[in-house]
Amino acid sequence: MAQSDARDRLVAGAADMLRRRGLNATSVRELAKHSGAPLGSTYHYFPGGKSQLAAEAVRLADALTVRKLTAELSAGPVDGLRAFVGMWRKIVVDSDFQAGCPVLAVSVEDQPDEDDEPRRAAAEAFGHWTVLLADALREHGAAEDAAERTATLIVAAIEGTVALCRAQRSIRPLDQTAEALENIVRSVLGAGADQPN
Amino acid sequence: MAQSDARDRLVAGAADMLRRRGLNATSVRELAKHSGAPLGSTYHYFPGGKSQLAAEAVRLADALTVRKLTAELSAGPVDGLRAFVGMWRKIVVDSDFQAGCPVLAVSVEDQPDEDDEPRRAAAEAFGHWTVLLADALREHGAAEDAAERTATLIVAAIEGTVALCRAQRSIRPLDQTAEALENIVRSVLGAGADQPN
Repeated sequence: MAQSDARDRLVAGAADMLRRRGLNATSVRELAKHSGAPLGSTYHYFPGGKSQLAAEAVRLADALTVRKLTAELSAGPVDGLRAFVGMWRKIVVDSDFQAGCPVLAVSVEDQPDEDDEPRRAAAEAFGHWTVLLADALREHGAAEDAAERTATLIVAAIEGTVALCRAQRSIRPLDQTAEALENIVRSVLGAGADQPN
Repeated sequence: MAQSDARDRLVAGAADMLRRRGLNATSVRELAKHSGAPLGSTYHYFPGGKSQLAAEAVRLADALTVRKLTAELSAGPVDGLRAFVGMWRKIVVDSDFQAGCPVLAVSVEDQPDEDDEPRRAAAEAFGHWTVLLADALREHGAAEDAAERTATLIVAAIEGTVALCRAQRSIRPLDQTAEALENIVRSVLGAGADQPN
């Protein structure tokens, strides 16, 4: 296995653990084991320890989401929203409601101020997604403030819905949120102002 | 201190820990210490251990939220929504972005199927809040399906926004989500269908 492959596998494994168990409950030893990597290699690739590895896992999830959103938003905000929803649906359903979002996971556990790289990576990730969605909404006719507000609503609502689905062991909250958000996006774009929900 | 006081203090302390650190990373020993209670009393009051205590903490947060929502929704869905938002704003701001929602916290960490009482309590809590909001929306003129969809959107969006605020160390996402949701509620009630967002 090439060096970069081993490193990438550790980051992907860490992202998967964060999706399932969160940050504070996961040790570097468990992350190494989950990725099938020797413990020593973890410290070799990530001298900053768990917070460095977790931050890279958050950035991986961020980058994959940015790539997906950028590609799908080129067809318009509704298509972008559907792709965003579909991505989370697959993660939740394929894991039988055991996995969610590593970005949310590191956002809801406190980290010491001097070691909060994962939290800062999460803040950037949410920012990237919101900007992409807001830009697409504006480009398709939404007013400046409505675009930003709606983009924030979409990111927050999808993240929250993933948690609801996991708690309730049901995909129904995501179906409902997706329909509500799609109606809102259409309204904001001026295509269906008489049917806001 | 009366027996019930000691027990209540343990549950309140557990809720506070869950808001900040989540479930898996918190030991019964830490919960006892955080509540200023002897470790033995924890096992005395909660023979089911951490999952029983955590489930009661989730039910406490549920009950407080139900009480608040029920009281404020009597003045209408917009007032109820504002109170719901205000409750979370206070928790996030007063804790300097260190605390969020214990119900969400236990929803995003996997628990073994044979020991998932906290997750089941969280599912019930989200259900209670959604039903209260949906009932109020229906009573004030929303259509059946729009009421349920909008109630789910509100609960999911506020929960997700609390995570965004904590990650970004900013209350701005909550301000934006609150404004977007208020516009949506007004639209669904038929009071402002020309201004969905």
